[in-house]
Amino acid sequence: MANEQQKREVGEEEEQVVNPWEVTAKDGGKIDYDKLIEKFGCQRLDRSLVDRVERLTDRPAHVFLRRGVFFAHRDFNEILDVYERGEKFYLYTGRGPSSEALHLGHLVPFMFTKYLQDAFKVPLVIQLTDDEKCMWKNLSVEESKRLARENAKDIIACGFDITRTFIFSDFNYVGGVFYENMVKVAKCVTFNKVVGIFGFTQEDHIGKISFPPVQAVPSFPSSFPHLFPGKDQLRCLIPCAIDQDPYFRMTRDVAPRIGYQKPALIESSFFPALQGETGKMSASDPNSAIYVTDSSKDIKNKVNRYAFSGGQDSIENHRKYGANLEVDIPVKYLNFFLEDDAELEHIKKEYGAGRMLTGEVKKCLIQVLSELVERHRQARAAVTDEMVDAFMAVRPLPNMFS
Amino acid sequence: MANEQQKREVGEEEEQVVNPWEVTAKDGGKIDYDKLIEKFGCQRLDRSLVDRVERLTDRPAHVFLRRGVFFAHRDFNEILDVYERGEKFYLYTGRGPSSEALHLGHLVPFMFTKYLQDAFKVPLVIQLTDDEKCMWKNLSVEESKRLARENAKDIIACGFDITRTFIFSDFNYVGGVFYENMVKVAKCVTFNKVVGIFGFTQEDHIGKISFPPVQAVPSFPSSFPHLFPGKDQLRCLIPCAIDQDPYFRMTRDVAPRIGYQKPALIESSFFPALQGETGKMSASDPNSAIYVTDSSKDIKNKVNRYAFSGGQDSIENHRKYGANLEVDIPVKYLNFFLEDDAELEHIKKEYGAGRMLTGEVKKCLIQVLSELVERHRQARAAVTDEMVDAFMAVRPLPNMFS
Repeated sequence: MANEQQKREVGEEEEQVVNPWEVTAKDGGKIDYDKLIEKFGCQRLDRSLVDRVERLTDRPAHVFLRRGVFFAHRDFNEILDVYERGEKFYLYTGRGPSSEALHLGHLVPFMFTKYLQDAFKVPLVIQLTDDEKCMWKNLSVEESKRLARENAKDIIACGFDITRTFIFSDFNYVGGVFYENMVKVAKCVTFNKVVGIFGFTQEDHIGKISFPPVQAVPSFPSSFPHLFPGKDQLRCLIPCAIDQDPYFRMTRDVAPRIGYQKPALIESSFFPALQGETGKMSASDPNSAIYVTDSSKDIKNKVNRYAFSGGQDSIENHRKYGANLEVDIPVKYLNFFLEDDAELEHIKKEYGAGRMLTGEVKKCLIQVLSELVERHRQARAAVTDEMVDAFMAVRPLPNMFS
Repeated sequence: MANEQQKREVGEEEEQVVNPWEVTAKDGGKIDYDKLIEKFGCQRLDRSLVDRVERLTDRPAHVFLRRGVFFAHRDFNEILDVYERGEKFYLYTGRGPSSEALHLGHLVPFMFTKYLQDAFKVPLVIQLTDDEKCMWKNLSVEESKRLARENAKDIIACGFDITRTFIFSDFNYVGGVFYENMVKVAKCVTFNKVVGIFGFTQEDHIGKISFPPVQAVPSFPSSFPHLFPGKDQLRCLIPCAIDQDPYFRMTRDVAPRIGYQKPALIESSFFPALQGETGKMSASDPNSAIYVTDSSKDIKNKVNRYAFSGGQDSIENHRKYGANLEVDIPVKYLNFFLEDDAELEHIKKEYGAGRMLTGEVKKCLIQVLSELVERHRQARAAVTDEMVDAFMAVRPLPNMFS
């Protein structure tokens, strides 16, 4: 009853749903990220933090950082304090391997994580939650494991440094201290608590209810005794999309109670669907996304046919009023992937003023995406099964803190 | 509301509670095993099955079998069919390592399992649920693991054949196919279902809710790829006390849905406390039980002071009415541990007729238990850490099906 009462009181705010399995904006509109920050209780990643990153790493911040794709954080400043003192930390990110081909939205956290790894020279663990997908998508264990390996190839193609990167799938790695930590976390979280955080119901199977600790424990260095022996208090930074925040709210709540450090987070907004910015891309609608397996012809066709345009309905009106950049998907995509700041500014200015037409912007986007996807395709083709085995081998990382 | 309605309808039957964490008879009386068989839906182990065991194994049935200590089963006849066809099966039993010293009740399933292993010449897996005890008793992971190893020594002291026996603790062994099977089971069981079977509540932590699959999956041979490669349909027989039945009701319900055989069970009644047969012995009251660490003096003292007697209140009345064997703990204990049928019959007859006094029966029991405990003490003292390592090594069992 209290819940219904609460719902009535918060009113319309409840209409925006963001959790690991659902991202739905209010009334089919855009996700309100300010409200999300407030609701989740994380902090906005402001310009001064970006400046500090540039100062500490002595290189320009990644496009995703300086253009606000990664827009929220938890204790990222503490990670920078650690780094500034000459100490180290480690990175943790992951993926639920539900589909064979990744789309561009899937690449965002990995591209950003690679930048962080290169800039800070720190070790990285990447979790493939094949167990989660086996349970949520009702895939067989074998199919889930196969998809994990396929996805690992795309992840490796993002250019991670094998001397600093450990990739693991839950089905292959759960056990030992990792499992001990799962039990330690599970002891601290009631069923009522996971109902509150994740929205589980009594009709849900106990596999779902058991899962949150599995995604929680890579936040603790002791889960990787082959990587961080004797470094149980090493800090962890998690780059992820903000829909994963519930897992790590739970993790941060539990961490001090079991003698561990809270993981820090740096969180991104969602990569929009071609049809418009109302949520994440959907793997179930192939025309809502550009896949890393799409040909240049596919990309051209999808961008031209489906990318929602902020341009006006006639050339005359367009010249007169200019494009609405707030809703224009080609511009949003360029904001992610066109690295040249000056060129991007030029396009925004000209397109916004109506001097540039949608077709010209789309042509630029098609070229940027085709190059990106072609580069990825070549990199992925070079990833052998032996390399996957090497990245996933349980081993010390020789180059970890140098 | 439905639950309260149901409770009112079944009325007094609800007063007897038997589950893995609670054994409480109705109104402080004795456990009604007939009602338990009916409620759980298992079968009574009748004389014809015992005869069949003797015929097939060509040796006398174990005391626990011919005296009805193991009194209930599920599909035990099918296991005997398998054996009669010249095929094999495997045994699975276990223990939750919550206390350092075992009492006699703890030894019962292991003594019986050793007999089954010897009689049928089959492999055996023994699970030490250190994760369960860590969660239920709020022990640290380290303490739970230490207790598991200590308990393993007592188990090994029961005489298991190292060429046919694999002992594992969950903290050391969960992972690989074992974990895959946990996920497969968990997918098939809702929160509502475990509430119905185990009585969990929404305030329980998710560690408890996650645990039943851990105890379920040793029922499936694929959980032990180093033991049973390519033998996914090998049948499993579980000797255990009947309070463990809920786990395996759940397991048997799930098994066919994930392509596995249902485990068969052979189930014992509870070893009574010294103070009387109202439930199991309690590890929290040291005077309720004889421990394997008790000295002969301890045993003499406990039996004489605490063992509930069915003898009359005066020698005169005793000679006149005889002892009430139905409630007499010394006779019940002798029923478990005095192997000589003729001697037991003699005692029952003489004691029941009042010609033998409680003191004489207790003297006999003290001798029987002292010998048993001294034998165990010597056997346990001979168990080295290296032997524990050897039993717990993940390895093929050389002598498995011969």
